[in-house]
Amino acid sequence: MILAKVVGTVVASQKEPSMDGLKFLTLQQVDIEGKAKGGFVIAADAMGAGAGEMVLYASGSSARQTKVTENRPCDAVVMAIVDNWEIDGKLKYKKGRDD
Amino acid sequence: MILAKVVGTVVASQKEPSMDGLKFLTLQQVDIEGKAKGGFVIAADAMGAGAGEMVLYASGSSARQTKVTENRPCDAVVMAIVDNWEIDGKLKYKKGRDD
Amino acid sequence: MILAKVVGTVVASQKEPSMDGLKFLTLQQVDIEGKAKGGFVIAADAMGAGAGEMVLYASGSSARQTKVTENRPCDAVVMAIVDNWEIDGKLKYKKGRDD
Amino acid sequence: MILAKVVGTVVASQKEPSMDGLKFLTLQQVDIEGKAKGGFVIAADAMGAGAGEMVLYASGSSARQTKVTENRPCDAVVMAIVDNWEIDGKLKYKKGRDD
Amino acid sequence: MILAKVVGTVVASQKEPSMDGLKFLTLQQVDIEGKAKGGFVIAADAMGAGAGEMVLYASGSSARQTKVTENRPCDAVVMAIVDNWEIDGKLKYKKGRDD
Repeated sequence: MILAKVVGTVVASQKEPSMDGLKFLTLQQVDIEGKAKGGFVIAADAMGAGAGEMVLYASGSSARQTKVTENRPCDAVVMAIVDNWEIDGKLKYKKGRDD
Repeated sequence: MILAKVVGTVVASQKEPSMDGLKFLTLQQVDIEGKAKGGFVIAADAMGAGAGEMVLYASGSSARQTKVTENRPCDAVVMAIVDNWEIDGKLKYKKGRDD
Repeated sequence: MILAKVVGTVVASQKEPSMDGLKFLTLQQVDIEGKAKGGFVIAADAMGAGAGEMVLYASGSSARQTKVTENRPCDAVVMAIVDNWEIDGKLKYKKGRDD
Repeated sequence: MILAKVVGTVVASQKEPSMDGLKFLTLQQVDIEGKAKGGFVIAADAMGAGAGEMVLYASGSSARQTKVTENRPCDAVVMAIVDNWEIDGKLKYKKGRDD
Repeated sequence: MILAKVVGTVVASQKEPSMDGLKFLTLQQVDIEGKAKGGFVIAADAMGAGAGEMVLYASGSSARQTKVTENRPCDAVVMAIVDNWEIDGKLKYKKGRDD
């Protein structure tokens, strides 16, 4: 899985019928300090994640292993909202903290 | 999924029989400003997307989760035509707008 | 799928028994002008493609969706021979043309 | 599979129900000298790997071929803890050795 | 598939039980001249490949399409030992030849 921040949404009224009702989130990949790094990906939202939240997303066929994405042409899904992470025993990100 | 712009088509009369009738679109990946960035990919068209439209495409096995691509040697499919997207609350792209 | 040019062949007498009879083609990825760009990949040939031809290949599990590659440890397959392509309405490649 | 070092953990209380009980490890990819190189990935832990250990992880659908990850939206799993490796006959890494 | 050279082995006594008995080979990717280029990957050995041999490996779910890797958390497998390859009609590599 990859750490990313929810930075926006994509609206598409014309889409594969099986995708109806799914929300598309724009995710900015982040490094382990939580800073923007790397590219953007559009993921289906299986969690009700909101703008600014740090999330984990899964790619490929694994992105179809949730109820909302099963058997759908979906190759990326937000499957967790991150509370915090630590590297080498140091807290690097904590939800709600300013930095 | 990845944001991309339809920039062309590829014609191949000799192809896997199961691909007969599928249209191949050339997609230019774009950044979140809608500017060309990154590579090109050839995707099957499940949406009737036209030249110049912004689309979402799915890759890998997920590209086979549409009626027109099921069980076919197809690893990229256009599965949505984008109306608009926003980043940090600001509209970055709106279909039909000039910029 | 990705556009590529057939530039060579690989011979491997010791291989997974299920791969017997499959031809391995060396493909050079090309840009939308048809110029060599990007890396090389070795793909199974489902089309009888010849040296110098422009082809489309599919990767991943989609590479196993042809009769000759089904259930085989094959992650790339040539599934179409390209006649021509156009970008923004301009013909960029046409089979048999010199440039 | 890719060689990586366990450098941290990610906590996510809101996650796909099927992921409950799985531990998320932050992995730093390493080169063949064991030095940090390349990116980070978040993997499910199928081995009980600890901080500082060198591991192998598998990606994609292969990441779902363990008991703890089966049918889950998980695209990376630690499936081995490395004891040692050698390149061209020279020992490059041995668990417990300081360098 | 990708061309690579067998350059080493990885030992992991603690691993997913289904991986018992599988040998892990370290592969250095090579260019079409046979020179080291690109990264390293750890692959399961389905062929009994030895140090210094040029091989083809398959990635992703295709890596599970051999008897020894079926249903296992394995995302790369050596599925052929290369005898020779040619580019544009010129022999670039022949097993046993010094250059």
